[in-house]
Amino acid sequence: MTEFELIRQYFQRDAGPSWCRLGIGDDAAILRPPAQRELAICTDTLVAGRHFPQDTAAADIGWKALAVNLSDLAAMGAQPMGFLLNLTLPDNDPAFVAELARGMFELASTHDVALIGGDTTRGPMSLSVTAFGHVAIDRTLRRDAARVGDVIVVAGELGGAALALARGGAADPALRAYLDRPQPQIEAGLALVECGHAAIDISDGLAADLGHILTASGCGAQIDLAALPLAPQLADLADSEAMRLALHGGDDYALIATLSRRAWAALAERPCGWRCVGEIVEQPGLYGRAHDGSRQLIPATGYTHF
Amino acid sequence: MTEFELIRQYFQRDAGPSWCRLGIGDDAAILRPPAQRELAICTDTLVAGRHFPQDTAAADIGWKALAVNLSDLAAMGAQPMGFLLNLTLPDNDPAFVAELARGMFELASTHDVALIGGDTTRGPMSLSVTAFGHVAIDRTLRRDAARVGDVIVVAGELGGAALALARGGAADPALRAYLDRPQPQIEAGLALVECGHAAIDISDGLAADLGHILTASGCGAQIDLAALPLAPQLADLADSEAMRLALHGGDDYALIATLSRRAWAALAERPCGWRCVGEIVEQPGLYGRAHDGSRQLIPATGYTHF
Repeated sequence: MTEFELIRQYFQRDAGPSWCRLGIGDDAAILRPPAQRELAICTDTLVAGRHFPQDTAAADIGWKALAVNLSDLAAMGAQPMGFLLNLTLPDNDPAFVAELARGMFELASTHDVALIGGDTTRGPMSLSVTAFGHVAIDRTLRRDAARVGDVIVVAGELGGAALALARGGAADPALRAYLDRPQPQIEAGLALVECGHAAIDISDGLAADLGHILTASGCGAQIDLAALPLAPQLADLADSEAMRLALHGGDDYALIATLSRRAWAALAERPCGWRCVGEIVEQPGLYGRAHDGSRQLIPATGYTHF
Repeated sequence: MTEFELIRQYFQRDAGPSWCRLGIGDDAAILRPPAQRELAICTDTLVAGRHFPQDTAAADIGWKALAVNLSDLAAMGAQPMGFLLNLTLPDNDPAFVAELARGMFELASTHDVALIGGDTTRGPMSLSVTAFGHVAIDRTLRRDAARVGDVIVVAGELGGAALALARGGAADPALRAYLDRPQPQIEAGLALVECGHAAIDISDGLAADLGHILTASGCGAQIDLAALPLAPQLADLADSEAMRLALHGGDDYALIATLSRRAWAALAERPCGWRCVGEIVEQPGLYGRAHDGSRQLIPATGYTHF
């Protein structure tokens, strides 16, 4: 199967959205951005054995490559529109590609995002997805916009992916889904964009990613550890182990954000997917408050690639 | 050096263009697309040993990764704006990254394009660049828009990169530059966008890429072999070898396009970088006409990845 046949068979869809003036099959895709909106664009590469275990099913690889990018758009409060896929594969395996495409389009159709272009090449397996969406002008949820007195909120669950990774083959399917099929918190991002200040998606662990907000915004935070929305499978673990996974485990793709206390009072009146977990304070550093009222400094360590 | 330090040191620039509302350092970049224009977006992955020889200098790898994408924008008649870089590297080698960034920004500054985001990760070396630019509404140069009677024009030189690849270490620097430092034909694309019909950039060889236009447009072509703009280094070769490189060699990143005879007469009156090499005909297939008037069918073979 040639590169062109591969694209036609597995990735090209007939009807594109109306904003897509020209999709897969030319030198570039052409899109007509919505008037009076800004465009958010992000890209993430997934390497086998690093961003997903080598035994990950092809459909799950496809899902995850798109999910981690939609999660970045969610963290900006953007409405996703479409994506491009760079697919590098070591050999010609149509069954693998078919499954990868199936998982990817399963997530894409859930959020009505269209594949409009990309590239296929041969080499050690990796996938890069570039996703884009639109957001109201000057309404972006940025990392540097947290303010002292803000409420800190989380959407999604914490620690499930790290526990699944630690258990490896012993993880049951429901637990493994946290690792293989992260759910980008798009609705939560959209619900927050009108009233939120700072936001980031939790890919390297809550402590590390909230740490990026604190560094960029020049402030500190106090977290109520009992309020963290843990994946239910963490209930059986010792408290310290559950907290380690929830604070420093990677791959959750939950969102963490800040907004004023007043805005939170209004948002919390309706089902919004967000949960209050702490507050932004002036004193630098991230502190956790336990059941018994004790307070401890949480190091902002997480996953780093280099 | 962490991922974040790497990005800050080598890839982050202080002042972004005014259309870039938020650049490197958040979950996504935010851009404000120009009003009344469409956005062209393209992406290409380069794998070491496949898209460039293993001995390629880091600065040349950086240049080429951006150049092949700007070439795609040129083929759409788009004005380039910016790009994202996904960089996967096997190890932490700051000197390599510094050189790669130097070569990439050398080309970027020539065409006033800004790096606004990306991703770095560890793994077997590959680079994906996603580039975007703007183009007038419904003015895109598409592959499927050639019409019978159109003049076929080429901008750039042919065969130099393939000859450099064949000579390997024996290629002198001027020849090697065809392979390592392709020049995207952006000005030529912009000169053509108001009057052109079809266009494509020549990455897999003239015959294969013109073949894509012919297939998509449902027509054939006749090329005047003596009119092809060969790289000067091909002058010393036997005619048949020079033609093989010019027609089937890859990596030229010249443009080939079609436009009406009347539009060509107007365009050719000023320096435009384009050269007439043949015409679109009704009969399917690509035919070459030699000095002596003889005519031969040229197979549309080129480089394929799978």
